[in-house]
Amino acid sequence: MSLIAKTPKPPYYAVIFTSQRTEDDHGYGPMAARMVELAAKQPGFLGIESAREDVGITVSYWSDLEAIKQWKANAEHQVAQKLGREQWYSSFKTRISKVERDYGI
Amino acid sequence: MSLIAKTPKPPYYAVIFTSQRTEDDHGYGPMAARMVELAAKQPGFLGIESAREDVGITVSYWSDLEAIKQWKANAEHQVAQKLGREQWYSSFKTRISKVERDYGI
Repeated sequence: MSLIAKTPKPPYYAVIFTSQRTEDDHGYGPMAARMVELAAKQPGFLGIESAREDVGITVSYWSDLEAIKQWKANAEHQVAQKLGREQWYSSFKTRISKVERDYGI
Repeated sequence: MSLIAKTPKPPYYAVIFTSQRTEDDHGYGPMAARMVELAAKQPGFLGIESAREDVGITVSYWSDLEAIKQWKANAEHQVAQKLGREQWYSSFKTRISKVERDYGI
């Protein structure tokens, strides 16, 4: 997978997930990797980009809002979301946004 | 500045800038810091989040498209953009998106 997502021409959707971690690493790494693997199999998935320093930012790209809703409702993802809220993240913000325009090199 | 941007209730805009760096560090750090300082003074600026590992992701938040246009046209920022294209980034993608919904803890 390329590090910069090869998304199609807009419009499409971006889910911007920004988080700060707790010190509880128990199971985090494998679960994060599993979620990327699982998201990539979802209908409407277009790509994902991720980096963490003091704050972690993961941006996943989707064809439409229905695809995002289905991913949020995925049973294994629901378990991960619950553990994230309870154990792994001291704070996070999820922003659902519609990409209207893009450019780059 | 908090690491997770304290944005207002949607709608607002997010500029998702994803990049891969060259090995040319000449002047990059100070310029990156200066751009954050300068962006924060722009009308319509709402916050910024940033992390870099193999890929760098910077998300800046803005009140409207006009604010984003003004920031892109800022003279000092234009110089930084030119150096970015020519020296600092091997590839990048800028995505302009409208945040429709958000939630978090």
